[in-house]
Amino acid sequence: MEQRISLVTLGVKDVAVSKAFYEQLGWEAQMDVEETVFFQVGGSVLTLWSREKLAVDSGIEDPGGWGGVAIAHNVRSREEVDALIERARALGARITREPAETFYGGYAAVFLDPDGHPWEIAHNPGFELLEDGSLRLPPG
Amino acid sequence: MEQRISLVTLGVKDVAVSKAFYEQLGWEAQMDVEETVFFQVGGSVLTLWSREKLAVDSGIEDPGGWGGVAIAHNVRSREEVDALIERARALGARITREPAETFYGGYAAVFLDPDGHPWEIAHNPGFELLEDGSLRLPPG
Repeated sequence: MEQRISLVTLGVKDVAVSKAFYEQLGWEAQMDVEETVFFQVGGSVLTLWSREKLAVDSGIEDPGGWGGVAIAHNVRSREEVDALIERARALGARITREPAETFYGGYAAVFLDPDGHPWEIAHNPGFELLEDGSLRLPPG
Repeated sequence: MEQRISLVTLGVKDVAVSKAFYEQLGWEAQMDVEETVFFQVGGSVLTLWSREKLAVDSGIEDPGGWGGVAIAHNVRSREEVDALIERARALGARITREPAETFYGGYAAVFLDPDGHPWEIAHNPGFELLEDGSLRLPPG
């Protein structure tokens, strides 16, 4: 198995509502077909799709709630963390962790998207954020 | 908000068990610090971390179960789908969807990792898989 994530699909209640939320955060969808929205994110794709259909498609039971997955979006400064969290708050997102220093020497906060998917917005000086938005782990 | 996913963190019960599972699938961890394992996946990072700590860190309740997120790993042929699913099965992973044609004209299957996180292994001729493993959506 090669080492890559091709798509991350977030199951949502209402694709239009979720699409609008991400668009209002500044994202632009590249495809919107059959109630499925695709955003190009670097060399991967973030997809918004019906949570119900995703459960069926994945062959699993959905008890509802959170399932142990969080996405992080790293930024280049603490000020960017603050600004992005305020933007999410203004859009009605719940902030589950206010901006603060982290145990790993960074500065971060967490908001939930309309379906409760957590996004950590982080400034982590230990992980290099390249010009093109790629994140590079320190050499092993 | 720029359009990127920096890290995807999978909450797990036992970091060592999960790390061994991904290693046996062929992955190589670049960092393993404080019971947190980091894999470089293209310009993003896949992280394995205690699900309990991830819930606390994200400021959310964890009812257990699946939470509406699925990851896809695209490959270059149908044969690769079959081979990877057999590899996962041999490692004890539950196959929740056997390899079959998909509604979007591809060929795919789904396995669950040791913590129930679903991975769709897909051959999708409609989405270009570049030499470096990046996935490109069709021009909008």
